[in-house]
Amino acid sequence: MTVTRADVARAADRIGGYVLRTPVIEVEPGRWLKLECLQHAGSFKVRGAFNRLLGATPPAAGVLAASGGNHGLAVAFAARRLGVRAEIFVPEVCAPVKIAGLRALGAEVVIGGAIYQEALEASGKRAAETGAVEIHAYDQLDVAAGQGTVAPELLEQVGQVDTVVVAVGGGGLVAGIVAGLDGRAQVVAVEPERIPTLHRALAAGGPVRVEVSGVGADALGASMLGRIAYETVAGRVTSVLVSDDAIVEARHALWHDHRIAVEHAGAAALAALRAGAYTPAPGERVAVIVCGSNTDPATLAVTRR
Amino acid sequence: MTVTRADVARAADRIGGYVLRTPVIEVEPGRWLKLECLQHAGSFKVRGAFNRLLGATPPAAGVLAASGGNHGLAVAFAARRLGVRAEIFVPEVCAPVKIAGLRALGAEVVIGGAIYQEALEASGKRAAETGAVEIHAYDQLDVAAGQGTVAPELLEQVGQVDTVVVAVGGGGLVAGIVAGLDGRAQVVAVEPERIPTLHRALAAGGPVRVEVSGVGADALGASMLGRIAYETVAGRVTSVLVSDDAIVEARHALWHDHRIAVEHAGAAALAALRAGAYTPAPGERVAVIVCGSNTDPATLAVTRR
Ligand SMILES: Cc1ncc(COP(=O)(O)O)c(C=O)c1O
Ligand SMILES: Cc1ncc(COP(=O)(O)O)c(C=O)c1O
Repeated sequence: MTVTRADVARAADRIGGYVLRTPVIEVEPGRWLKLECLQHAGSFKVRGAFNRLLGATPPAAGVLAASGGNHGLAVAFAARRLGVRAEIFVPEVCAPVKIAGLRALGAEVVIGGAIYQEALEASGKRAAETGAVEIHAYDQLDVAAGQGTVAPELLEQVGQVDTVVVAVGGGGLVAGIVAGLDGRAQVVAVEPERIPTLHRALAAGGPVRVEVSGVGADALGASMLGRIAYETVAGRVTSVLVSDDAIVEARHALWHDHRIAVEHAGAAALAALRAGAYTPAPGERVAVIVCGSNTDPATLAVTRR
Repeated sequence: MTVTRADVARAADRIGGYVLRTPVIEVEPGRWLKLECLQHAGSFKVRGAFNRLLGATPPAAGVLAASGGNHGLAVAFAARRLGVRAEIFVPEVCAPVKIAGLRALGAEVVIGGAIYQEALEASGKRAAETGAVEIHAYDQLDVAAGQGTVAPELLEQVGQVDTVVVAVGGGGLVAGIVAGLDGRAQVVAVEPERIPTLHRALAAGGPVRVEVSGVGADALGASMLGRIAYETVAGRVTSVLVSDDAIVEARHALWHDHRIAVEHAGAAALAALRAGAYTPAPGERVAVIVCGSNTDPATLAVTRR
């Protein structure tokens, strides 16, 4: 199953009234940053959540997701906006501040097991019992198509670009963007060296399980690329890896140079340019998706490392 | 001497290639935030600095300013960009991190006395000796006209608005905006209760010296409104005051709800709406200038007060 340009166009029509048209800034000639970090609930993830919710007819049991991170926040935000009940299954390791954030958005939080995989299984069982609509973090067509709405919005704002640089976790965002662009720009897919789900999937000819660690793990830490992502992007992206140091450096540069506060995942795409994992040709028009800001600003020191 | 719409239009032509066209986001229907906090050097102040610099022909001695804050950073930034020497006079109380920031931008930093007023006098003496171009923080026509370029840019981005809400220190920004709008929208001028330079000037029929204290003092802490500001805005603005608590609350809300990290001065205008110092009529279209982000992000706690 692949995401198509038509899926993304339909998603854009559906969610238009519910998500922010996030700003784009041109930081030097031919270099744009698309600020999804200013999106509702702090990341692009509300795009997929709204698209899935608006495409379903949730029963009284509402919607349900497994996530201790941005996906959970996004589902809780979208559910509250639409007046739908949300249950979010989190692993025991989930930080208390994140649980408080989910509750502040009106979600019911269920501790679903020791690790994410157990929370996911518990949420699946619960959905089978209650009939609640499940919203997967990346491997669902409506979710990936929703994330992809970043792409046509970007083209409307900037006009033609040659290259879009984007971070990859489970691959919903990159799949949606590849589909939404549909060849109108090439896509550079960026992962931390320590979470190479796409990189390995491309090498192996299909999703394989990888070890997950490093600074990006809380947001980019899916242990395997989604099926939909693999089928949508294989052969259609340039896959590059960046070190944790490069991500940390890019995150500090975003604050220091542009006063944009992001989480590590939100700086990964920019890191690929700054660290030379991807080097644009002279005159190449490049847009970078700055994808998330759910971070403790105290970790952005004033003095740059 | 007053700033006029034509002065602002000329400034916009002059500085267009040097400053960012900062984004505007619509946070709810009919409420916009103009993100000058993402401007070069972290505030709108580069607009005035570039306009003054580009309008002068600096001698080898370059330019000179007195400021321990955003004006100094802005002058240093603009001077470096234009290849001009910059000397910034700061008071002894200036934080080491700010001095380091000025030096990182290539400026020469001179400790000019115990307090700002002494630094200003020392800088004036120095200018008389060297012939360097002085750039005042607010009470110069080119400076105020430069700050005012925010206004036509905003109108281009948003279309018609009814009201622009803006913070006031020495009054360069509000004067420029009143001139730039030239009646196309009304202006609400916001000051901390503890630094009411405009409020008192309007009551007294001219600028008077006020006590300066509170959370906004580092950026809004001019002890007297500028002459140009008084003559430009008297009778043309609604002046309101906000408490320090309201400023602190609005600053946290900007981070919590929108992931926009600002200094206290940058949140003062929004505070007037949130705290009810100014209450728009139903359907009134209101734009808030979010004016600065030179802050230590560590002071933005994750948990909201
Ligand atoms: C900030 C941020 N960036 C990127 C990603 C990766 O998205 P995807 O899993 O769709 O590849 C995530 C996923 O949670 C995220 O939160
Ligand atoms: C962030 C910020 N906002 C507002 C102001 C007030 O500007 P003005 O002195 O032109 O009124 C300043 C002045 O330094 C500032 O730095």
